[in-house]
Amino acid sequence: MTAAPGATGDVFVFDRHVRFDEVDAAQILFFARFFNYAHDAMEAFFGQLPGGYVDLINTRKVGLPAVHVEADFINPLRFGDVARIEVVVTRIGRSSVAFRHTMTRQRDDAKVAVVTHVCAAVDLAHMKSVPIPDDMRALMTRHLTKA
Amino acid sequence: MTAAPGATGDVFVFDRHVRFDEVDAAQILFFARFFNYAHDAMEAFFGQLPGGYVDLINTRKVGLPAVHVEADFINPLRFGDVARIEVVVTRIGRSSVAFRHTMTRQRDDAKVAVVTHVCAAVDLAHMKSVPIPDDMRALMTRHLTKA
Amino acid sequence: MTAAPGATGDVFVFDRHVRFDEVDAAQILFFARFFNYAHDAMEAFFGQLPGGYVDLINTRKVGLPAVHVEADFINPLRFGDVARIEVVVTRIGRSSVAFRHTMTRQRDDAKVAVVTHVCAAVDLAHMKSVPIPDDMRALMTRHLTKA
Amino acid sequence: MTAAPGATGDVFVFDRHVRFDEVDAAQILFFARFFNYAHDAMEAFFGQLPGGYVDLINTRKVGLPAVHVEADFINPLRFGDVARIEVVVTRIGRSSVAFRHTMTRQRDDAKVAVVTHVCAAVDLAHMKSVPIPDDMRALMTRHLTKA
Repeated sequence: MTAAPGATGDVFVFDRHVRFDEVDAAQILFFARFFNYAHDAMEAFFGQLPGGYVDLINTRKVGLPAVHVEADFINPLRFGDVARIEVVVTRIGRSSVAFRHTMTRQRDDAKVAVVTHVCAAVDLAHMKSVPIPDDMRALMTRHLTKA
Repeated sequence: MTAAPGATGDVFVFDRHVRFDEVDAAQILFFARFFNYAHDAMEAFFGQLPGGYVDLINTRKVGLPAVHVEADFINPLRFGDVARIEVVVTRIGRSSVAFRHTMTRQRDDAKVAVVTHVCAAVDLAHMKSVPIPDDMRALMTRHLTKA
Repeated sequence: MTAAPGATGDVFVFDRHVRFDEVDAAQILFFARFFNYAHDAMEAFFGQLPGGYVDLINTRKVGLPAVHVEADFINPLRFGDVARIEVVVTRIGRSSVAFRHTMTRQRDDAKVAVVTHVCAAVDLAHMKSVPIPDDMRALMTRHLTKA
Repeated sequence: MTAAPGATGDVFVFDRHVRFDEVDAAQILFFARFFNYAHDAMEAFFGQLPGGYVDLINTRKVGLPAVHVEADFINPLRFGDVARIEVVVTRIGRSSVAFRHTMTRQRDDAKVAVVTHVCAAVDLAHMKSVPIPDDMRALMTRHLTKA
């Protein structure tokens, strides 16, 4: 990665297999669960910090509730599929961050979904917005993309 | 209801339809979700008290975590089915209670499952066992069965 | 409802209480579950047709997978809260429909979320897009809003 | 492992961390989800066969629906905990198998739950009981315990 203008950030990759109980009566991954997958990917993303997402929540009491999300669903996932989730950061504000999760189906590389996930940093004790702590900001910046 | 030997208590009936996202890759209600249904039925059961289950948890801080459960699965439920859940109490202790949920499939009256759900009353602030409060005990006793 | 220009359609109202197991480690309704609520509201919406959503899926084999969703999260829901969901249709195409779910918290009328839910009608046997059947289109049109 | 009387089988170990959205309004892992964990452990257990659990379901069309389950809940799990699940087989019949999942909390080795999970092998196309296939039986036998 480089600081050059227009450079794009590191992509964080997370694989998630579709579990037996995650499909719906149409036999495809239920659409709401794509957001569970996005959250799983975000938890794994913060695993790059010491103590990971668990420490953020349980010890530092910094939460990242969603304030806005969007998704385009392009192809279905079925039981047995593995979603490859590529995570980048598309915007960092004082207390908010936007992640983009591009999901592909591992068996054929078909794009399945693109999820935008905008979170606000909050103090969990008071549910008040707080500035993004420095170590989190540094990590996000490393994955910030201009694309 | 009467205290006469062999008398059986009132049956509490709760209907729950199988939702679109509750089936699994075998297209039947995922077995773990029968316990979600049992909990839904228990929440509805305590709806017979003023303020209901929500008040128990949020205001009185009395929780009922499961200490033991059992289930026999006899017939499957599918999307579109409605489970009729008949709830009785089979045992009341100082701080524990055993519920039995007999579930039938509404479209053909087939028995689908029998779930035993033993809970302990706890003070949620300290997660310590407490005696069952009098109003809860009175309600449970009304549904106590000898059968 | 009237066909006059600018007229807005009937609002379909659906109430959903937050269940004991639907909150997350921040003690608020997990954000992905707002889409479960939106789907529950849509199922209830089609309950206005004979046979309801179940018949669409199980008998007529017409599914409505999501192709695009968006949500703004404004206030949290907690265990014990009831979400009032107001459903309108904002666009009807040949085989797609956009629902808007405006969710308020019943205890204080605070707006909690606005969810946009765009679905495509598909033949579930072949997962191919199909024109929206006439009875579904008539129902949607009754709830079509210009606002 | 040996065939000697009284010998105990290999223990299969599976670790599962408690996800952000799996706790309930009492802030502990919702009791029904222990069965999701047991199923996850069973899926991983069959990962010891080529193609794993996915192939059993999707290709060979052999399912393992639960016919009976039991659980004792001893200590709670919270967000951030990791459950260590030790899986053994306690009984193998013509078409049924009993798993025992002993779950401990990794941070302090406290026992959290013991889950018994009895499944029947079925032909998923007809939902009819079938004899356990030889490779599955051989794997189960390797993990069969007398204890």
